[in-house]
Formats: sequence, C-alpha cells, structure tokens
Amino acid sequence: MTQCKAIIEYDGAAYGGWQIQKNAPSIQEELEKALFHLSGERIRVRGAGRTDAGVHARGQVAAFTAPPGVPIERLARAINSRLPDDIAVVSAVPADDAFDPRRDCALKQYSYSLSLGHIRPALGRGQTWHVKWNVDADRMLQAAPYFVGTHDFTSFANRERGGEDNIRTIERCDLVVGMRDRAGRTRLDFRIEGRSFLYNMVRAIVGTLVDIGAGRLPPEAIPEILEEKSRAAAGQSAPPRGLCLEWVLYPGDDRPAADR
Amino acid sequence: MTQCKAIIEYDGAAYGGWQIQKNAPSIQEELEKALFHLSGERIRVRGAGRTDAGVHARGQVAAFTAPPGVPIERLARAINSRLPDDIAVVSAVPADDAFDPRRDCALKQYSYSLSLGHIRPALGRGQTWHVKWNVDADRMLQAAPYFVGTHDFTSFANRERGGEDNIRTIERCDLVVGMRDRAGRTRLDFRIEGRSFLYNMVRAIVGTLVDIGAGRLPPEAIPEILEEKSRAAAGQSAPPRGLCLEWVLYPGDDRPAADR
Repeated sequence: MTQCKAIIEYDGAAYGGWQIQKNAPSIQEELEKALFHLSGERIRVRGAGRTDAGVHARGQVAAFTAPPGVPIERLARAINSRLPDDIAVVSAVPADDAFDPRRDCALKQYSYSLSLGHIRPALGRGQTWHVKWNVDADRMLQAAPYFVGTHDFTSFANRERGGEDNIRTIERCDLVVGMRDRAGRTRLDFRIEGRSFLYNMVRAIVGTLVDIGAGRLPPEAIPEILEEKSRAAAGQSAPPRGLCLEWVLYPGDDRPAADR
Repeated sequence: MTQCKAIIEYDGAAYGGWQIQKNAPSIQEELEKALFHLSGERIRVRGAGRTDAGVHARGQVAAFTAPPGVPIERLARAINSRLPDDIAVVSAVPADDAFDPRRDCALKQYSYSLSLGHIRPALGRGQTWHVKWNVDADRMLQAAPYFVGTHDFTSFANRERGGEDNIRTIERCDLVVGMRDRAGRTRLDFRIEGRSFLYNMVRAIVGTLVDIGAGRLPPEAIPEILEEKSRAAAGQSAPPRGLCLEWVLYPGDDRPAADR
C-alpha cells in the first residue's frame, strides 16, 4: 500500500466545504466516494487545508492510500472519471508513508478576487466578490503590508480562543489593481501566503481591507486592530466565492512557475 | 421616446440563446421582462448578434425605447435590479432613432477559449472547451490566417443555402497560446473579427482548427475546404460554452482599450 499525494482543483459553489459533514456534500466525501467506486475499498482522504463552504481551490493537496491495481500514472484520470465535473484531480504521485498534507505544509497561497464598480459581473460572478460601494484601492494597497510578519490574529479569527494558538506568520500580503473594464469595473487580485491560517482569517483580512478602502477604517489602523485581539475590532468578512486556495508547498518544493 | 443603446453582459449557460423562443428562456426575453417590470410597458429589445444556446457575451449591443420616467444615467442600474444575476446591463446611452444594432454594426469580435490537456478543468469549466486529444497548437496557428479575407463560408455554415448570401469578410483570425499550468493544460485564446458571421460559423471554424491540431486535416487544407462549399468538407463544431461575443463596434467607435 503506497501513499500518494494528489493536487485537487474544485469549484466550491455546490459544497459545504472540504471536510465531510452531515448536512451538505463535501469535496473530501466526493473524493472518498470516487476512490470507493474505483477500488471497492473505504480509503480515507486527508487535505492540507479545510476550505470553507463555497471556497474554491486550484491546488488543494490531499493524501490517501493508492488504490491497489491502478498504476499511479493512470490514477488521476481514473479518479476523475468517477468525480463530478466541479472537482478534478490534477496530479497524483507517490508520497512517503509518513506524509501528512496538513502538518508537513511549508507554505500556502490563497487568492481573493474582487470586482469594484456599480455594475455587477454576470460572467465569472461565481469566483469574485462584487463590491459596489466607492472603494479607494490605494488605501487597500497601503494597508495590506501591515499583515506581513508574525502577529496574534485573534481579531481576524471567527472562533475566538485567544492565546498562543492564534499566532500566525504571514509571508506575503498584497494586491494587484487591474485595468478598468468597459463596465467601469476594476478587478483587484489579492494574494496572501503563510504556513497556516486561522479559521476564516483570509476572509476577515479581505473584508477589513475593503472597509479600509471604503473609508470606514484608516489604513494605519491594522496594528491597533491586531493589538485589540477581538474580532469586533476588525471589519467585515468577505464572502467565500472570491477565495481560492492556489497552492500548497512542502519542504523542497519550488514555487509554481505560473505564479503571477 | 428616446431610443437607447445598451451593452449587455451574460453567462449564456442557462439560456436557449439571445432570441425569444418557445421552449427555453432567452436573454432577449429576460431584458423585455425587466423593462416591463420597470415601466409597465411592452418594450421590444433588438440585439446586434443572435448568440446561440449556451454562448456568452461581454459586449452584446441591444437597442430599445428608453422607458419613460427613468433618467438615462440610472437606467442600467434600474434594469439590473430586475434581471437575473447571469445577465447585466453594462451601460445604456441615448442613440439615434434610426439606430439598428444589427444592420449598423461595423465590426464584431468573438473570443473562444480552449483548454488542451488530459485533465479537465473544474474551475471555469463553463467558459472553456476542454480538448483532451493530443493537439498541436502550432498547426492551429498555421491554419488560422487562411480564414482572413473575403470568402464564401458555406463550408462553415450549419444552414447550407449557397450563393452570395454566404460570402463574409474576416478581418482578423488568430490565437494566443498560454503557458502550461500545473495540470499540464495549455490555454488557447482564439479571436475572430468581422462585420457579420453565418449561423454557427465561429464554432465550425474553431472545431476545424482543433481537427487540424489533432492531425485529422492539414493546416493548408482551409482554402480547399472553403472551395468545396459543403459543411461536410470542414471539421467538427466546437461546443457553445467556449464562445463569447466580446464587443460590437459602430462607425466612429474606437476599439476597446482593454482588447488583449
């Protein structure tokens, strides 16, 4: 029984999130069902990050025991033929038996896509947050770097527990402002990188940046908000549909070549 | 009663096409319903191009009588609040009473998105054609320029009638090959421009280019295929979901600044 490491892409719109749960379909459950159909065996799938309901992934990483009898080079396609069309196994390679996709992770990147303007997007609306207030992207650009570094992120976590548990290190936090399209919309492409994130943390950071852009908070308020260690001190939570887990790196991995 | 010219964006997945029809919802019908809710009057909406079932648009142009009592600068948003979320009015401006969006059109651009590779895309799957055969993009690049110019396109029309009716002028026909992503997929971005196109013509051109890429036809076969004036001489029809009406220009209009 070889363990394998698979990269998974999904459109999260129809799911209650990555993790198996009682009242909604999940990505993990769909993968386990596909492996069961393929092998006749119950194979447990573990993921690198527990994405929330409605959140997408281009590069989730999953680990599971390779189903016997399927050559590893054919495994991705064999699983894909048994998955719904909003989930795809991008690749599957052999992994060390001790490989743990969550614990061993060295760095993750999430993206968040925003569309600023009065006209809501009709095409691609499932992967972007339409913000119709007047938002000053420059204020958001000023605020984003405050998140980089090691901080207590209690103010940006939906499950407040406080203490050492909420300390995380952000390696990168920035955004790129796109061209205005003919509908007068500006696309913002937000990226954040770290080894791990608190529950709901990326969405709370993006929502707070939008509140800053809208003038509800000053850009330089971030250090104070972190200091307060209270979710009430920060801004709103951005909706899940703009969020995407882009990739997960392990020790020795290179950054994806196509990374912006 | 002023006439107005509106730019319309839509995700065509849920519709039987632009034009009102008996057994499926249509974009035209949704716009007319929204105008009826807004004004209490039956207002006829005419479009620049009759996109097929499942085809998208970022820049369809529609003309209709402006509903009385709504200032033109608020019209787009007033209609949008009465439209389903897969259709949006991008802008609405006053137009000459004689304006006819179809007859007056000077140039249209369609795009077609292809994803080449063994792994099907899960994200964005509704706006791209996944081609899993081995396809040589260089052969497609060689073939595309043969379509530029004035030709009889009977071989690329699904409703064969023959004769002068099928002569069209293509101003541009090319494609850009993207980087391979981590799933080994290459994105091809196809663009074609002309004043008007025959029914199903763009999809027949794209499908034939894919057949050329797959080695089923040589790149230099295009002139002969045009010569044969028979749909059977050309290749397959590409599915509608990769196709998008990008923009429609009228005399005096500039090309959109964001055009690739």
